[in-house]
This record gives sequence, structure tokens and C-alpha cells, in this order.
Amino acid sequence: MNSSEWFTEQLPEAGTAFSLKIKQKLHEEQSEFQFLEIYETETFGNLMVIDGCTMVSTRDNFFYHEMISHPALFTHPDPKRVWIIGGGDCGTLREVLKHPSVEQAVQIDIDERVTRLAEIYFPELCESNNDPRADLKFIDGIKWVKEAEPNSVDIIIVDSTDPAGPAVGLFSEAFYRDCFNCLSEHGMVVQQSESALLHMKLIGEIRNAMSNAGLSHLQTLFFPQCLYPSGWWSATIAGKSDLSRFREAESANKPFDTVFYNIDIHKAALAQPEFFKKAFGL
Amino acid sequence: MNSSEWFTEQLPEAGTAFSLKIKQKLHEEQSEFQFLEIYETETFGNLMVIDGCTMVSTRDNFFYHEMISHPALFTHPDPKRVWIIGGGDCGTLREVLKHPSVEQAVQIDIDERVTRLAEIYFPELCESNNDPRADLKFIDGIKWVKEAEPNSVDIIIVDSTDPAGPAVGLFSEAFYRDCFNCLSEHGMVVQQSESALLHMKLIGEIRNAMSNAGLSHLQTLFFPQCLYPSGWWSATIAGKSDLSRFREAESANKPFDTVFYNIDIHKAALAQPEFFKKAFGL
Repeated sequence: MNSSEWFTEQLPEAGTAFSLKIKQKLHEEQSEFQFLEIYETETFGNLMVIDGCTMVSTRDNFFYHEMISHPALFTHPDPKRVWIIGGGDCGTLREVLKHPSVEQAVQIDIDERVTRLAEIYFPELCESNNDPRADLKFIDGIKWVKEAEPNSVDIIIVDSTDPAGPAVGLFSEAFYRDCFNCLSEHGMVVQQSESALLHMKLIGEIRNAMSNAGLSHLQTLFFPQCLYPSGWWSATIAGKSDLSRFREAESANKPFDTVFYNIDIHKAALAQPEFFKKAFGL
Repeated sequence: MNSSEWFTEQLPEAGTAFSLKIKQKLHEEQSEFQFLEIYETETFGNLMVIDGCTMVSTRDNFFYHEMISHPALFTHPDPKRVWIIGGGDCGTLREVLKHPSVEQAVQIDIDERVTRLAEIYFPELCESNNDPRADLKFIDGIKWVKEAEPNSVDIIIVDSTDPAGPAVGLFSEAFYRDCFNCLSEHGMVVQQSESALLHMKLIGEIRNAMSNAGLSHLQTLFFPQCLYPSGWWSATIAGKSDLSRFREAESANKPFDTVFYNIDIHKAALAQPEFFKKAFGL
């Protein structure tokens, strides 16, 4: 139903579809890597679509961007160096840079066009792009991590599209092993890990791959995300060391604003549904 | 897009639509009160639709039915008498009757046809209908509550359709006042209260109406529900007395199975998002 009135993302294998009412298409282009579309919606602000999949809307991106960033950054004892693999809309970068401890945040998205379009259509997500701690690279994140020196990063956030197209290598054991090799002592990877209602098999594969790569401390977090299939999304943190505590005092007194995240929401995201515990023996 | 392949619920005012891929339509009828449809879907089992709105699917109803029941039942100190207003699919009744303390559970749905169809197409939701503690009435729940004696019920669960059609009176201060009058000392109402992403104005009106009716202890809970708009749903508990604690030991040792609910999920549902706290001064 990509009529003039609605944009629809169909997931035939999941048997679901989600639609937003649109006012107009603002832009479309075939970049070197992906087909990019921007719509103005009736009620969700602007919408970016990559290869037919809804990526980010003005109205509801705060769930995802806050939850892929703040829980990990408040779990690491002292995150100074953060890499964002993917994340070309710059919303994750903005959240990461809210943390005063961060000295360097490198965003590595293979497709520069995503960022250039975000600057035009999602300027609020790009408001920290000129922060002196920010470094935007438009290169292959898999290669970047593979060639990195040991102990060169504290947190790697994999803010990628679904495991298809250029993102498929980001969900592999080989990639997580490369992450392991360049992470510092208490280092961790955060991976967007799809929906626990629709993609349990994939979540299991991600968790296994992380664990096999030596990132054996796992924590899957759950949060709403209207724009993504089922409306219920997850991120999985895989750490070199224990993840069972986070810096609660700092979270409770965070020196920045959020729309969704707070200390109670952080704890809530850590709660494991009964079926999830059973599936993974937690 | 009610093609032969997909069932779609459009919410023009929210600017969103959700679709399930269908194999076939199994049944449709105009009852005395509503237009009822049953579909066999590709991936969500059977689907009941009332007046064009998705109500319940085989696959994902556990979120809603567990979360509208167990948090309230573990919050009340000793729930013996429970009324379910609406809830004709019998899924809430099944969850309520899992609690050994419950001596009587009365389901009051105005439309008997909903239950008769649930018995055919959702038999697993109806498996407790013959429990000797269960009492199924097909009458007007608003009138039932209005005419009830004081101190005749411990928990009233309002498991209704959206505030339109026959359900509109269930969201009013007058109705909550009638609830107040027949609830016992630690009595509470649980109301399905729509999506905090899409319906904040309505949630505010529900909370105000409850509070004005004397049910001044409020607790809105949040949980996923793929089938409902935005995929992120809420229930609001309104109590005569303090709701800030629940029977954690009993929840941790619940003598029954669930798919989603457990003690951690209970606590997680109580976490209030930052924007929600700001909106309601929490």
C-alpha cells in the first residue's frame, strides 16, 4: 500500500505490516549502497525509509536512540571512547555525547548520504555533529573494527539496519570477535537485536555469536518502538565483564534531558519476559 | 487494505495502520451490538475484529491478558471477588482464575456473541469458563456496577473496547464513582488505557475521572501489545488505598504459568517514562 496517502512496510515473513499516513514524499535517491526515501507524515513528523524499511521518524525515534545508548553508557564504569557503527541519522551520536565522561565518539556509517539527508530532514538529531568530541567517518564499519588496535574503544554501539544488505556482516561472530579484540578491559558491544515477538531465532543467533566471540556477559534490553515491526524492540549488550550492575547514582542524577529514559526505565528494560527466560535458560 | 491477503486496521486520527496477513475469513456477523469478524492469519493464529478494530489474536494476546490481571491481583492484599467488565473473549477471566485466593470471578460482557465466538475460535482462552468460581453474565456492565451493593467486589477489571460505541460509558467519572461505591476497603479498578504514544490526552482524562471519583491512588502500567495501535499499551489501576507495594513474595512464587508476566516484568511495568512523569507531575 504505497499509495499517495500511506507509506507501508510489509514484512511478509512475519505476516505483519505497519503504515504511516503521509502528506508528501520529500526526497528519494539511490545512494551507492541503498535506496533512500524521506516522507513528510501526517502525525509522525518526517520519516526516513531505507530499502523499503522504516528507519527513523521525528516523533518516536527517542525510544530507540535513548535505549541503545544510555543503558550501556551507564553500565560501563567510565566510558570515554565510543564508536557507533551505522547510526548515520546521528541520533545515537547525540545521545552518546550527552555523557560528560565521553571524550571521543566516532560514528562510522558506510553511507554518507544517510547523514546528509538527516542534516536536512532531521536537524534535531544532528545537533551534536559539530561537538569537538564527534568524529563522523563514512567508511566500512566492519573493516574499521577489524583493523583497529587493541584497547582502542570502550563501547561499540551497532546501530544498524536489519541483518540484510550492507549490515549482514554486523551480526556475525567474526565481527564480534574483532570487536572483542579492540575493546578495553570493561568493554562492551551494544547491538540492536530486533523484536522478541517476531525474531527469537535471530536473537538467539546474535547472543550465541557474541558469546562465542568472548563477549560472554549478555543482557538483552526491551523497549517500545512503534516504527519497528511489532512495536516492541530490543538491544543486546555483550560485555567482556559483568553487566549486572549499572551506575545508578549517576543515572538518577543524569545531567541531561531525555524523553523516555530514566533510572526506572533503565531497570525496566532489564526485566526478562518469562518466555525469554525459558528460551535462553536465564 | 482489506484485500483478500491482509486485514488492516487504520487509525486515521493517529495516522497509523497495522496489518496482518490473512489466510481466510472464518466468520462474520452483525451482533446486537457490534460487527464481529474472525480471520485465520498467516502468522498470528486466529484474529477477532470488532467494528473494524483488532481485538485479540491467538499469538500475542498473552501480553494484554496477563498484564491487565496479574499486577492488580498481586497488588490487592487478598483478592477474593473480581469482576471483569467486557472481556468477552474470556482471556482475562482465565488469568484471574489462576489466583488461588479468588473465590468468585464474574465476567459481564454486554455481547454474548463475543464469548460464543471465542469458545469456537479461541478455545484456549475459554478453558476456565467452567471453573465453578466463574460466572459469565451477558448484560450491561455499566448498569451492573451502578446497581451493585456496597462492599461487593475487590477488583473491577475494565477489559473494554476503545472508548466508542457500547464502551464509551466505561471511561466516565460517573462509572468510576459507581465502582467506588461497590468496591471493598482496598478495592481497585483496572482500566485498559490505550497507548501513551498516541493517546496521552485520553489517559489524562481517565486518570482525572478516576481520581475525581475517589479512586485517588493511580498507577499506570506499560507493556507491549503488537496488535494494538503503536504496539505499546497501558493499563491504569485506580485504588481506594495505597498501590505502592505489591505482594512480591507471592508474585515471585506464583503457582501458575505465564508467558510474559513475572515479578521483574511486574516491576518493569510500573516504571514511568520521563515524558509521562512530566505530563502528570509524577
